[in-house]
Amino acid sequence: MNGTMFRNDAMTDALRLAAETGEAGEVPVAAIITDSAGEVIAMAGNRVERDHDPSAHAEILAIRQAAAIMGSARLNDCDLWVTLEPCAMCAAAISHARIRRLYYGADDPKSGGVAHGARVFSHATCHHKPEVYSGIGAEQSAALLKDFFARRR
Amino acid sequence: MNGTMFRNDAMTDALRLAAETGEAGEVPVAAIITDSAGEVIAMAGNRVERDHDPSAHAEILAIRQAAAIMGSARLNDCDLWVTLEPCAMCAAAISHARIRRLYYGADDPKSGGVAHGARVFSHATCHHKPEVYSGIGAEQSAALLKDFFARRR
Repeated sequence: MNGTMFRNDAMTDALRLAAETGEAGEVPVAAIITDSAGEVIAMAGNRVERDHDPSAHAEILAIRQAAAIMGSARLNDCDLWVTLEPCAMCAAAISHARIRRLYYGADDPKSGGVAHGARVFSHATCHHKPEVYSGIGAEQSAALLKDFFARRR
Repeated sequence: MNGTMFRNDAMTDALRLAAETGEAGEVPVAAIITDSAGEVIAMAGNRVERDHDPSAHAEILAIRQAAAIMGSARLNDCDLWVTLEPCAMCAAAISHARIRRLYYGADDPKSGGVAHGARVFSHATCHHKPEVYSGIGAEQSAALLKDFFARRR
């Protein structure tokens, strides 16, 4: 009966997939795209190593899936949920895809391109800027990444 | 017998493919990747419309091809030739792929992410910065783009 409790199924699902992604040996990041009705239309974990593809970040894979399903390179009215701050590549892809809202988890001071580094959405030449909400599930996301890199060392 | 003449087969080929790309109804941009021996290992024209894929810029497609061929997400010692200044998405992908040298044609003040806008390689958090050479075949590239957009209006 707590009306203020913030349920966030999409990010919960993304965190679960990020954990599985880490278990598969990939940097544990995952993304989900929901349509205007809030239905999940695409989800992907990072697959850079498995696919030998430097562009195979979770966000790019989810955007490609969603665009194929929608039959359009533009995902107007769709939202993207990702467990980590997108890098510049993914932020620019989110802009190209006309994603409506970007929800992300942990900040990424080292490689992020939204609140750090290239700050892709902050330039006058950025043709589409999504609404951005950060910090959702950030602790769980950061813990996944910390554990992953600790095990690798 | 002009020893100073600059032959640039890779960009010539990229310009030819960019023209074909425009004839197919896509924004006329093309990219080529050469390996350490200067051999072409991947080439692609922009396919955003055909593939319904906002990430299907020429550079991303060529990088994905080359990485698949090399069996590695990192294209150390490979060079990328593209007819237009890469956008932020492609510039960051070039960085992720560890491309050694980037050669590009026309400047893109509206959407470029190398010398304009997000200036992806200019941030301290950019983990790999290729050597960048611009202006190669720039006039032909700009003419292709101008003609394409003039026909569309």
